[in-house]
Amino acid sequence: MTDYPSALLEKAVNEFSRLPGVGRKTALRFCLHLLKLPPAESEELGQTIIRLRTGIRQCEVCHNLSDSSRCSICNDRRRDTSVVCIVESIRDVLAIENTTQFRGVYHVLGGIISPMEGIGPTDLSLPQLEERAAKSTINEFILALPATLEGDTTSYYIYRKLSAVSSATFSTIARGIAVGDELEYTDEITLGRSILNRTPYHSR
Amino acid sequence: MTDYPSALLEKAVNEFSRLPGVGRKTALRFCLHLLKLPPAESEELGQTIIRLRTGIRQCEVCHNLSDSSRCSICNDRRRDTSVVCIVESIRDVLAIENTTQFRGVYHVLGGIISPMEGIGPTDLSLPQLEERAAKSTINEFILALPATLEGDTTSYYIYRKLSAVSSATFSTIARGIAVGDELEYTDEITLGRSILNRTPYHSR
Repeated sequence: MTDYPSALLEKAVNEFSRLPGVGRKTALRFCLHLLKLPPAESEELGQTIIRLRTGIRQCEVCHNLSDSSRCSICNDRRRDTSVVCIVESIRDVLAIENTTQFRGVYHVLGGIISPMEGIGPTDLSLPQLEERAAKSTINEFILALPATLEGDTTSYYIYRKLSAVSSATFSTIARGIAVGDELEYTDEITLGRSILNRTPYHSR
Repeated sequence: MTDYPSALLEKAVNEFSRLPGVGRKTALRFCLHLLKLPPAESEELGQTIIRLRTGIRQCEVCHNLSDSSRCSICNDRRRDTSVVCIVESIRDVLAIENTTQFRGVYHVLGGIISPMEGIGPTDLSLPQLEERAAKSTINEFILALPATLEGDTTSYYIYRKLSAVSSATFSTIARGIAVGDELEYTDEITLGRSILNRTPYHSR
């Protein structure tokens, strides 16, 4: 255990090392880097982190992150609002947007159903999705959830719930993505093709 | 290039990705992690970063980081102030302290002389080291600088300057084969030096 020469430095190292994937050595590198920067630049990072938590909202339609009540995708008139791609997180939205293969809109669940972790339908934006399905004219739901047990369970739950209130068709992204892989880390071509070659959803 | 759904998120990703070794994906992970934390915890990191830059000072004796005018090592009466270990950065201080083998004090240069990068003696705490050598009773200077061309140049520069104002002896940390390493896989320069600088054998 290292004794830091400054309590403030120690506190900063502790704070940084709570970030995902950051150990104490990396945290120290961050701190020493910040100490070398002009004070204004270092303060900028601090201020941005504080504003980030208070300034960012959820899009009231799709639950994507947004600066205003509707996100830039839901506000874009060129997007086809009759095709809704259901994803686990905003990272998946970014990954799919990166492929430029999808012109519909999204619904961000904010997680997937996981009894093991105590995450049920009401912890996610599933009630809002049902409401959206009942109110809007939607022709197709694309289930773009992870190829895991929890992902499949969530897909099936959504299919059962939404097919009761909507006449839309259901599809899943093509299983070109290896089982167990994350959307976020899939290369753009594979991910793009998996959107184009989406297949009808069959409940098993 | 990803279009982030929020300008604030994009700004935060840009800020984070300026940290050493942090790319845009890692920066995004940091941001999404912070967005999931309770607001107070996220704000704490921001505040700590702001305070870090304004609150941390340099020890007036050894140029280590400190919360007050003298660092905890220079303030520690049990340390032997007649042995000064000269290092490049505070990270080297932490590494040596971690060994618990050194009971002297330090002098942190804040870099090494590097004409290629435009770093000269006055960019470092070398004038202060000369002053310290002239004023204090120092018996030994340990040169613990990197085994590179720049490190050797800096060591030689320091030796020339300090031996003019101080009667202290000079030493360098031992260069050799790391404990546990195989001779076979050691580079020729290190192996050569370890033969030239061989030490008397003591049977245990």
